[in-house]
Amino acid sequence: MLRRPTVPIPVGQGKSIDDILSEMKLTAFQGRKLAETVDVWSRMLRKRRTVIWFGFAGAMIPAGMRRLLAYLIKKRMVDVIVSTGANFYHDAFEVAGGKHYLGNEVCDDRKLRRQRIDRIYDVYADEDRFYQFDRWLDNVFGEQLQDNYQYSSREILWQLGKAFYDKYGEVDSTLVSSYRKGVPLFCPAFGDSALGFSLMFANRKRKRNLILNAFKDVDESSRITEKAKNTGVVYIGGGTPKNFIQQTSVIASYQTRHDRSHNFAVQFTMDMPFWGGLSGCTFEEAQSWGKISSNASAITCYVEATIALPLVVHALAERFRGYKREVPTFDWVNDNVELTFEKTKL
Amino acid sequence: MLRRPTVPIPVGQGKSIDDILSEMKLTAFQGRKLAETVDVWSRMLRKRRTVIWFGFAGAMIPAGMRRLLAYLIKKRMVDVIVSTGANFYHDAFEVAGGKHYLGNEVCDDRKLRRQRIDRIYDVYADEDRFYQFDRWLDNVFGEQLQDNYQYSSREILWQLGKAFYDKYGEVDSTLVSSYRKGVPLFCPAFGDSALGFSLMFANRKRKRNLILNAFKDVDESSRITEKAKNTGVVYIGGGTPKNFIQQTSVIASYQTRHDRSHNFAVQFTMDMPFWGGLSGCTFEEAQSWGKISSNASAITCYVEATIALPLVVHALAERFRGYKREVPTFDWVNDNVELTFEKTKL
Amino acid sequence: MLRRPTVPIPVGQGKSIDDILSEMKLTAFQGRKLAETVDVWSRMLRKRRTVIWFGFAGAMIPAGMRRLLAYLIKKRMVDVIVSTGANFYHDAFEVAGGKHYLGNEVCDDRKLRRQRIDRIYDVYADEDRFYQFDRWLDNVFGEQLQDNYQYSSREILWQLGKAFYDKYGEVDSTLVSSYRKGVPLFCPAFGDSALGFSLMFANRKRKRNLILNAFKDVDESSRITEKAKNTGVVYIGGGTPKNFIQQTSVIASYQTRHDRSHNFAVQFTMDMPFWGGLSGCTFEEAQSWGKISSNASAITCYVEATIALPLVVHALAERFRGYKREVPTFDWVNDNVELTFEKTKL
Amino acid sequence: MLRRPTVPIPVGQGKSIDDILSEMKLTAFQGRKLAETVDVWSRMLRKRRTVIWFGFAGAMIPAGMRRLLAYLIKKRMVDVIVSTGANFYHDAFEVAGGKHYLGNEVCDDRKLRRQRIDRIYDVYADEDRFYQFDRWLDNVFGEQLQDNYQYSSREILWQLGKAFYDKYGEVDSTLVSSYRKGVPLFCPAFGDSALGFSLMFANRKRKRNLILNAFKDVDESSRITEKAKNTGVVYIGGGTPKNFIQQTSVIASYQTRHDRSHNFAVQFTMDMPFWGGLSGCTFEEAQSWGKISSNASAITCYVEATIALPLVVHALAERFRGYKREVPTFDWVNDNVELTFEKTKL
Repeated sequence: MLRRPTVPIPVGQGKSIDDILSEMKLTAFQGRKLAETVDVWSRMLRKRRTVIWFGFAGAMIPAGMRRLLAYLIKKRMVDVIVSTGANFYHDAFEVAGGKHYLGNEVCDDRKLRRQRIDRIYDVYADEDRFYQFDRWLDNVFGEQLQDNYQYSSREILWQLGKAFYDKYGEVDSTLVSSYRKGVPLFCPAFGDSALGFSLMFANRKRKRNLILNAFKDVDESSRITEKAKNTGVVYIGGGTPKNFIQQTSVIASYQTRHDRSHNFAVQFTMDMPFWGGLSGCTFEEAQSWGKISSNASAITCYVEATIALPLVVHALAERFRGYKREVPTFDWVNDNVELTFEKTKL
Repeated sequence: MLRRPTVPIPVGQGKSIDDILSEMKLTAFQGRKLAETVDVWSRMLRKRRTVIWFGFAGAMIPAGMRRLLAYLIKKRMVDVIVSTGANFYHDAFEVAGGKHYLGNEVCDDRKLRRQRIDRIYDVYADEDRFYQFDRWLDNVFGEQLQDNYQYSSREILWQLGKAFYDKYGEVDSTLVSSYRKGVPLFCPAFGDSALGFSLMFANRKRKRNLILNAFKDVDESSRITEKAKNTGVVYIGGGTPKNFIQQTSVIASYQTRHDRSHNFAVQFTMDMPFWGGLSGCTFEEAQSWGKISSNASAITCYVEATIALPLVVHALAERFRGYKREVPTFDWVNDNVELTFEKTKL
Repeated sequence: MLRRPTVPIPVGQGKSIDDILSEMKLTAFQGRKLAETVDVWSRMLRKRRTVIWFGFAGAMIPAGMRRLLAYLIKKRMVDVIVSTGANFYHDAFEVAGGKHYLGNEVCDDRKLRRQRIDRIYDVYADEDRFYQFDRWLDNVFGEQLQDNYQYSSREILWQLGKAFYDKYGEVDSTLVSSYRKGVPLFCPAFGDSALGFSLMFANRKRKRNLILNAFKDVDESSRITEKAKNTGVVYIGGGTPKNFIQQTSVIASYQTRHDRSHNFAVQFTMDMPFWGGLSGCTFEEAQSWGKISSNASAITCYVEATIALPLVVHALAERFRGYKREVPTFDWVNDNVELTFEKTKL
Repeated sequence: MLRRPTVPIPVGQGKSIDDILSEMKLTAFQGRKLAETVDVWSRMLRKRRTVIWFGFAGAMIPAGMRRLLAYLIKKRMVDVIVSTGANFYHDAFEVAGGKHYLGNEVCDDRKLRRQRIDRIYDVYADEDRFYQFDRWLDNVFGEQLQDNYQYSSREILWQLGKAFYDKYGEVDSTLVSSYRKGVPLFCPAFGDSALGFSLMFANRKRKRNLILNAFKDVDESSRITEKAKNTGVVYIGGGTPKNFIQQTSVIASYQTRHDRSHNFAVQFTMDMPFWGGLSGCTFEEAQSWGKISSNASAITCYVEATIALPLVVHALAERFRGYKREVPTFDWVNDNVELTFEKTKL
């Protein structure tokens, strides 16, 4: 147990981001964990015929993470995505030219209210621009959806990605890049966002009958884990994205009568296990449920995502430049999905 | 600014829970905040014609909070509830005789897996009992729902409360007590739970066509805040319950063209504002959005809910014994809701 | 492992604080832990010939905890105390008539500065009163200390307790109550406080030669654990109090060549193990060092102290009313300490 | 207020660490804060005649940070250091050939105890090697100190740095590099560590009379801030290092009758303001006390230090390569200190 000593990091010029993370691997605490997340993610990418689930919660798009997330999609370092309605809303908003602004968390929020400025910690946004965009969703995008059809969130988000691609072309966006790369997007709490309430207004004001059937989301998402023999998960924060991805393995194990627990797991979070919630629970706890495999490579790093993502994505970009990964393609036929894997250069 | 000194708490015998909290009000830090949450909640209860939204996330039912929550419902200290599918699932499970067990968070989770014991921090549960209950939901409860009807989560949860009341009678339960008291329950991420995936199996295995239309949830919930002139919010944790309740004021203000920001706000959380997410954001931040009124009485206490709830609920019980509150009744007619207030003894 | 079910707390009138904590013991998460801290502390009090170390960090006195702490001392529910200079300073300040005031953490600190108001989260204090008190320490109390004598912090704090007792009589105070009850107080970072810098000014301005020899603190404190066969520890927060008490067992085990690890351990903290520091480390980690016994009854509750202390102290007061505990007396002779235990009614 | 939009980070190859941090400056949350700490630190380094205080708590040396800290000292990016006894102890231990090992925080601590392995979160150490080193401190280093002389911690640490330099030559070490560069080291809770208790044993076992006068530490440290017109502070964690540096400005302002509040302030911490303690308090709170100037450039980043330090030190190294800074030299004459500044190439 006393074989491998920690190696104090020497300071040097010209280090790349992967260099410094590799050095942090021989240190301790959360610095070491951060380095190990890159290693576990790397193992997922190298493992044959593996589907990588990616869940992200928290205001990642207003926080300037949009292009990092788009990169993961475009390079197929993630295969299926689950996030909150807010993130897809803000992604769409930015693609449509909306801006988020550098603000200050030490401020007078009542004054911001009077100026119609919405605050997200140290980010500001123009409320009137949000309202304009809501109207576009309601009046224009809503018209592109069919009445009476039972949509899954995946189908609506695909439609939204298509709408934006048709209008704005190739842009770095979770919606557009996923549309272009065939990466399914799920949003299990779609109604719980401006995306959801804007489309609700299409029903209410324009006498539409748009339907987002929550059961279809569960069905579609679990079918992916049923079909995939190997799965990995990467979580930015907790919330519905984490639980929704975790539960696919419970459903899939029940349905297939085989162990479909996830084989690789990475988690960046600031939520703690001590409060007993699913968001903060450890991968060890998840092993008791069979959500994460008892043999999984799993690592949690307690760090806020705006620190972790820029570093980890660049380290992966450096490490996997030109690498050929077996990337899954999803074909949705008669409410079921077929997976095919093909070697693709990242 | 130096007028009211802190008063060190003297130790005495025979204090009630409201006594000690009242003394904590003259101390500092989170002890004072905890005492202040009782005061703000009290103000909500005394304010005429006020609707109190109650959002709770985290595994509150496995943690032994079921009867405290049921008390709040039965005594109408809360009027509309939003929670996670997991909480309603575990509530139903306990009503049906299922148990959660005292466990230990320092343990061997792989061994638990082999014994089919699921862990929630320091609570254990029998996985096979969960599976049996899932089958009841799928096979028995699912049969009580109609094909092709567009349900809101409120409607399904009302049906579930009714099913349990018919079978088990008057029991302390968020589902049953809410059914009996006419308290609407919403679950914006219904699919993201065993409740959701069990009903999905009804569709998949039994060729049913159950529909939970997420847009209907948004519609129904926002109509409540549209109709209510005064609203208060109480949040246990963040997640979809918090955001979903917050957004009703955004929708209602837009729809009514009047300020429908919430007038009272209480929050118990261990999530921090520094991570930029909605779960941990301050009520000040919410004021910039007009979700919480600039004039609101608002207090956040950073404490885990299993400590706060027993204390706060008992302090309210002591303080409001026999009090007559103006309690709202919700009548759902043609997809809209009518509110009537009536003085009711708590 | 599935034998003892959680018991949801029923709501009732007329519960005492010990009642509700006893009910919380059958729930989960930090609510259960809080209840268990009372049990472990109770076991320490019932165990024969046991010395209870009590470490508290954080601004407990400004936060209104003075009389609760004094109660623990007067009733001899703690036997030796380690804290920060700031706490003893604020204790003395309050005894001398100084006040701490109810303030607000959402404020303009630059304005406070202009008004010479010092802020401690949501507590305010009058800076000029602090300055006056510093001068009393420097000019009056400093004169009561001898030049050239090598003091331990225990001896200076005893002298300070005596000075206040002589002037103000029997008051609830960590300093005065400890002086009266023979409870030793240690302050391993004495210089790191207004107490320390005020006495430094006695040296600098009045050409005194006051000496506080840090090595004497280590010597005296470790001798207590050397002599005691059974020890318990209670920590409010971490910092130097926690480490200083932990290290007495390392020193004592080395010196006596017997295992002197602490046998009971209770910790209330908001610091987390993930950051690798001593303040947040678990009692399990401490077991690897032999600081806490491998057989210890040990419990950590993650809760802020201003919530925990009022509840736990009242629960102990209810539970141990009239109980006769074997209380240790410390006799300091020739730099060594003798312990004698006597049954005393709490 | 809506002038500067956030700029989503694009992914690219060949970025340096300063490159990515500069991009993070236009994002949000703690990622932006991390980037801003480099900017505020840079401003300190560029400001003429400025003394930079550096406080670090937490087990930084076992965590592999020794050479990063030594770099800051050698390149004079810090001027005066305050830390815990544990850090200086572990620094000395590593210089003397001791090792810290890569361990695992999910482990059996009782088994570690039986194997005499001490755990620091995910770092292991050989307890017997610690004991050997303690004996060297006690028996060999203790002999190099004088009886009856009133040492400050600075003087003992200087002596220790000298002893190691004489024995091991030029090594990367907080002790040795500081000795070589004339950087004063303070340890206000010296007794609270293995360094402290080993030297106590010199007194106890070898009848020495070593004296570490805590008041001398306060005197010496405050004289630095009295003499310096501009000061900056950098805190890794809180604890005694943070408070001790903060209080030098209170003492210096009182003594000089001029405002000696610190002009620049950077803090990396995982402690939160909500618990009311000094470790977690904001720089805004410190402004109310006049510890930090009302006009200060101040930034707090909530991140664990083993993530922050490797990144921030490398970014500074890249940015200040070859830069000529006005570096202070400290001359201690008759218990007072003289400061002279000289341009030195970093």
